[in-house]
Amino acid sequence: MPRPLNIGLIGSKFMGRTHSNAYLKAAKFFDLPRLPIMHTIAARNLEETQAFADRWGWHNASDDWKAMVNNPEIDLIDIGTPNHVHHDQALAALEAGKHVACEKPLANTLDAAREMVQAAKKAKKQKTFVWYNYRRCPALALAHQLVKDGKLGRIYHVRGFYLQDWAGPDTPMLWRFSGKEAGSGSLGDLCAHSIDAARFVTGDEFANVNGAILKTFIKERTVLEGGAGGEISGRGAKTKKAKKAKSTVDDAALFTAEFKGGAVATFEATRLSTGDKNGNKLEVHGEKGAIKFNFERMCELEWYDATLPEREQGWSTINVSNGDAGHPYAEAWWPTAHSIGYEHGFINQAADMVKAVSNRKPLVPIPDFADAYETQRVLEAVVQSAKHRTPVKLSEIK
Amino acid sequence: MPRPLNIGLIGSKFMGRTHSNAYLKAAKFFDLPRLPIMHTIAARNLEETQAFADRWGWHNASDDWKAMVNNPEIDLIDIGTPNHVHHDQALAALEAGKHVACEKPLANTLDAAREMVQAAKKAKKQKTFVWYNYRRCPALALAHQLVKDGKLGRIYHVRGFYLQDWAGPDTPMLWRFSGKEAGSGSLGDLCAHSIDAARFVTGDEFANVNGAILKTFIKERTVLEGGAGGEISGRGAKTKKAKKAKSTVDDAALFTAEFKGGAVATFEATRLSTGDKNGNKLEVHGEKGAIKFNFERMCELEWYDATLPEREQGWSTINVSNGDAGHPYAEAWWPTAHSIGYEHGFINQAADMVKAVSNRKPLVPIPDFADAYETQRVLEAVVQSAKHRTPVKLSEIK
Amino acid sequence: MPRPLNIGLIGSKFMGRTHSNAYLKAAKFFDLPRLPIMHTIAARNLEETQAFADRWGWHNASDDWKAMVNNPEIDLIDIGTPNHVHHDQALAALEAGKHVACEKPLANTLDAAREMVQAAKKAKKQKTFVWYNYRRCPALALAHQLVKDGKLGRIYHVRGFYLQDWAGPDTPMLWRFSGKEAGSGSLGDLCAHSIDAARFVTGDEFANVNGAILKTFIKERTVLEGGAGGEISGRGAKTKKAKKAKSTVDDAALFTAEFKGGAVATFEATRLSTGDKNGNKLEVHGEKGAIKFNFERMCELEWYDATLPEREQGWSTINVSNGDAGHPYAEAWWPTAHSIGYEHGFINQAADMVKAVSNRKPLVPIPDFADAYETQRVLEAVVQSAKHRTPVKLSEIK
Amino acid sequence: MPRPLNIGLIGSKFMGRTHSNAYLKAAKFFDLPRLPIMHTIAARNLEETQAFADRWGWHNASDDWKAMVNNPEIDLIDIGTPNHVHHDQALAALEAGKHVACEKPLANTLDAAREMVQAAKKAKKQKTFVWYNYRRCPALALAHQLVKDGKLGRIYHVRGFYLQDWAGPDTPMLWRFSGKEAGSGSLGDLCAHSIDAARFVTGDEFANVNGAILKTFIKERTVLEGGAGGEISGRGAKTKKAKKAKSTVDDAALFTAEFKGGAVATFEATRLSTGDKNGNKLEVHGEKGAIKFNFERMCELEWYDATLPEREQGWSTINVSNGDAGHPYAEAWWPTAHSIGYEHGFINQAADMVKAVSNRKPLVPIPDFADAYETQRVLEAVVQSAKHRTPVKLSEIK
Repeated sequence: MPRPLNIGLIGSKFMGRTHSNAYLKAAKFFDLPRLPIMHTIAARNLEETQAFADRWGWHNASDDWKAMVNNPEIDLIDIGTPNHVHHDQALAALEAGKHVACEKPLANTLDAAREMVQAAKKAKKQKTFVWYNYRRCPALALAHQLVKDGKLGRIYHVRGFYLQDWAGPDTPMLWRFSGKEAGSGSLGDLCAHSIDAARFVTGDEFANVNGAILKTFIKERTVLEGGAGGEISGRGAKTKKAKKAKSTVDDAALFTAEFKGGAVATFEATRLSTGDKNGNKLEVHGEKGAIKFNFERMCELEWYDATLPEREQGWSTINVSNGDAGHPYAEAWWPTAHSIGYEHGFINQAADMVKAVSNRKPLVPIPDFADAYETQRVLEAVVQSAKHRTPVKLSEIK
Repeated sequence: MPRPLNIGLIGSKFMGRTHSNAYLKAAKFFDLPRLPIMHTIAARNLEETQAFADRWGWHNASDDWKAMVNNPEIDLIDIGTPNHVHHDQALAALEAGKHVACEKPLANTLDAAREMVQAAKKAKKQKTFVWYNYRRCPALALAHQLVKDGKLGRIYHVRGFYLQDWAGPDTPMLWRFSGKEAGSGSLGDLCAHSIDAARFVTGDEFANVNGAILKTFIKERTVLEGGAGGEISGRGAKTKKAKKAKSTVDDAALFTAEFKGGAVATFEATRLSTGDKNGNKLEVHGEKGAIKFNFERMCELEWYDATLPEREQGWSTINVSNGDAGHPYAEAWWPTAHSIGYEHGFINQAADMVKAVSNRKPLVPIPDFADAYETQRVLEAVVQSAKHRTPVKLSEIK
Repeated sequence: MPRPLNIGLIGSKFMGRTHSNAYLKAAKFFDLPRLPIMHTIAARNLEETQAFADRWGWHNASDDWKAMVNNPEIDLIDIGTPNHVHHDQALAALEAGKHVACEKPLANTLDAAREMVQAAKKAKKQKTFVWYNYRRCPALALAHQLVKDGKLGRIYHVRGFYLQDWAGPDTPMLWRFSGKEAGSGSLGDLCAHSIDAARFVTGDEFANVNGAILKTFIKERTVLEGGAGGEISGRGAKTKKAKKAKSTVDDAALFTAEFKGGAVATFEATRLSTGDKNGNKLEVHGEKGAIKFNFERMCELEWYDATLPEREQGWSTINVSNGDAGHPYAEAWWPTAHSIGYEHGFINQAADMVKAVSNRKPLVPIPDFADAYETQRVLEAVVQSAKHRTPVKLSEIK
Repeated sequence: MPRPLNIGLIGSKFMGRTHSNAYLKAAKFFDLPRLPIMHTIAARNLEETQAFADRWGWHNASDDWKAMVNNPEIDLIDIGTPNHVHHDQALAALEAGKHVACEKPLANTLDAAREMVQAAKKAKKQKTFVWYNYRRCPALALAHQLVKDGKLGRIYHVRGFYLQDWAGPDTPMLWRFSGKEAGSGSLGDLCAHSIDAARFVTGDEFANVNGAILKTFIKERTVLEGGAGGEISGRGAKTKKAKKAKSTVDDAALFTAEFKGGAVATFEATRLSTGDKNGNKLEVHGEKGAIKFNFERMCELEWYDATLPEREQGWSTINVSNGDAGHPYAEAWWPTAHSIGYEHGFINQAADMVKAVSNRKPLVPIPDFADAYETQRVLEAVVQSAKHRTPVKLSEIK
């Protein structure tokens, strides 16, 4: 039996569930060097947290994350809370000598993020991880491998779109619409994923950001009784009340960009793209080939091989689930085309984090704080481009 | 200027239009050894036929097809009439020494079809053609080429489906629902295309037909004033009248089959597949590759190459419109993915018929009467299998 | 904390994993009246079974299923073994007073299946279940609801296709190719699902089966060292050895059918449909609407509403994952379009079985032994139609 | 017989063919108030032009467009030449009292375009038309009608992408790569269509353009013998020669924009989007509904109706070819889903121009010079935004 790796998780809402599920399942499907143990869950309300712990099999529940962070039994602190508290929790955990996994984006401000990176740098023996979980969606991981293997050649075009539609005028005020808590709206929530995915797949970095627009279509939203509640995007959150509050985040973010390697790009994230439910899309076109990904059909990668005989060239829909074919993560799961879902990106990452803690190389790179900081710099460039209505070079963002 | 080829066309309804359009355009897009001349159009009502001739540019109009057939100026007689008159018209035209093109299916009875084949055989210097126009849909022609080039290997499965939905209970009595005129319903109208397409693409012949069902869902239909009218499938034909008449044809035909080469097959044709408008579908799966075609996306061929590296295998959507790539007929038309439509299959066939008359080989085989007779034998096997509720070997159908 | 429901599972291969995962997760996502406890796992090799138990969290491991069946602590016996042992295991479990869940198909012979139904009938206070898990794929459950709500009207057409391609000539001899163990090939393995799905969605029963073909394309397969091994379809099973053995099952099954309500149908199941990985497809066309389902895009249901204004009619792709919209099972899972996968059908069924044991009505019907026997009768009709090359009325199959 | 409308066409290359085909067919399929007569074709080389006239049925050929423009028999001058000569030809034709149809974009400079508009304004009794032919693609015309009927409500998002891939490094120097002749590359050739389509479908106008990038990936191209030849995008143009010339146009253009009504937008046009052959795409998302169009499947419109019961909401693929359903232009053509192609947009426009000349209202608006000038202003804003790297308000562009 492998040595245990004790996990302490902060947060019991949407991400609390996805991370709990990941730790529950990782060692069932992967052969891991250490056994992840669901040691302690910490969240604000002790009674609710205890109920969460009972349901999910956490051994302990706590309403004191600071105490948990300093519990010497715990090896890894996982931060699944809103963005504005990532900084303090991560610093405390690093200070306490723990490995740290943090939800994305790293922080709400570049300064906060930079401090996190510096703290991580100092903690040389500790690993840091950021939950850009889509990197472990097999189809996107295959796209990364194809580019890395030189199958696309020189890259011309990148398109990163993340399109949802749950934030219509009837959706009430949630913490996700509060600039103070969320930092931003579609930009940090959705576009951060697209920026990370574009960097991950191309292996390239942004050179500049241009013409950014951060648009708030719905300027006021109804306040639900009990304040800004509603954990998950829009679900069960349509009760109307008289009181109104201002939404202080962007409903949509869009910009053009150039990469260091010369590719040009368009990016767009929105919560108001009627009909698109979870359209996390990435398109990359190179001289020798191209890929298209849409999370709404997450098991599929569209692949165009421009080196095949011209008569037989076409967009090929690869069902990225064939373990025998070497598709990423497929061997751990079910037979070909017995599909996996949203939660499996998290489970794959949990498994890779456990390997990384034991100094095993993950199948594809996991972002640490320093890597996630590069995405954070792009987010900052978008904010500045939108604010000052100018192009912003990434070299200007420290 | 090439020597003229004078055409005489019988029929001015739906097929009259598609054939007229084909002769109008063939020499604009193809370099032909002879110039097709729209010499005479013959149909029942002289006044209407003259108007049709004026609109389409036929030099002469006639209400006497027999006279036209014997006009020594005319080189090729094209028969675009309902099935029950094909036999007499074809025999007269062959007798008069003309090349003959005939709409599909060849005839309503196997006996009639056999006489047509025998007459064609005797007329050694005359060419015969049957308008199984889908063979000249570029995507289906490419499928034929892929099989011929050995890209599929041993064939396991064939599926031939032709799904339409225009014949709901509100659709009135048309000649297409009269067994006397149409011979059959979905079987001769739609399934004949699937049978021909399966033979064309696989290069194989049917060994047997099993478990055939010929189903009439709507047993009575409203008679429109003026009798069984309504030239084109359902269009403008929803006026209700009190009088009812019996539909004496099948609304749907389905059966299983085996090919001589060992492939097994399912076939289905129907006018009541709600939501499917013109779903002429063919799927062929071989040991080394597979194809899927659906006329509703007629410019696309789905192609699966099982010899590629397994990691990169997927259904590839080829846009079959690239002249440089050697896609069939593409060179004659527009740039890649500037799509062609339904009518272009007819134009491509008109061009190939003109070439064939000058003893040039068409790009892919055009069915002559003898070839179309093989499809007719399969249709007969379906009828007998449905009637006697037994399997029918093709060797039993003479 | 709800009262425990102790589970004893027989089988630790492919289905052992899917069922273990289902019991592990059901109570995390559903509020259940009783708490499923992973009490004992039984399989042939004790050492391997203990390792399986350790990994998955089964409290006990056993190599004596008969002893387990008689353990008074256990409430429900779940049978995840090859088809030829279902009968004895189910009878013993019913005899011991347990609720019984059994993998599909019920048995390899109609006689065995009938005895299972009779035993279930006698055990009045015990529930039986059969793992036709696709009924709990949300998209298929929605199709069931649409038909039940009258949205399709009179049904004209049913198509049930289950297309895989893993059984090419290089795939070695597995127990799935042994008629003795598996009973049949594609018929019981795949087509059984299609038959159940057609019955489930239409709410109708088969009237007859026609023209059935059971085809073995690959008549001999290479024997792997250690005999007929290889648990999951084809995975890791390409080692070639000199010794050959006869495949005694069908690679493909196809037939036409009629339903009692008048619909006509084509069915096809195959392991040699090159390019199709897990194409469990169902199409149902009615007078007022139609649905299309393909498990390869399991979260989507294609829906055609023929009662909408004609201008706006089209095939609509519903992402069946919206809890607020009342999509089946969606409320238990993730936000809209954060997709679920293959395993979730099993988890949904585990949850529904726990509810059923407490006499709560499941969201959509779960097949018990009597219900699954109707599917078994259709399988028998297919076998007889293929053998005697005749149509077979279901009324002739007792 | 209706009164003739004599046409004089300038240009015998790609657009010469599409326009000739349009005049050949318009009166065959539409009942027109005047009969378009193919009176004279004018182009540079008399011999070639005579051959073109013979093939297509033009009554006269000429190498003197000025003489043709002043021929009193001619009613309408159609300009199908490269962009840099539109201005002089249009002014001469207007001066001569003719109706004028001009290929898009109107001109290479805003000044030239403005003069064309002013000349058109003065010629009060003459009609002007610009060949933004995609407006007459039935699916895009339906999108226009849906927005106009209020089915989308307040518009949030517009995306206009035109993606091709024919201009890789092996494609030689063509006139389309010469800034002097073409004015711009992907911007005027492709993006002009997207800008027009966005204006046409939304009924709204651009407020500003931001962050524009005009990118030339391939800076040098091989010169073909005989100079910058190659009429149609890339076809037959892969011969390599030693001599190189600079490409002085953009291979790709991308920018963000805002509309007066508040919608935000991304636009992208490129000739280097590997795998995309003719991806003229438009997406418009409103509060109540949304549409997606891709010319590669030109007969289909994807439509999302957010006012349907939530359970049944999905992207609906409308096959826009049903005359009975009132689909635009469908009545003139073939039965439902007997698809039309690229050329039919031109034929539909030719028919509508003939109607407009007789003061009949076309089915959907045809752009005249003044309307096309609005698109020209947006193109100019893109050029300025790219040049000065600033946002550009449309109000600044006169």
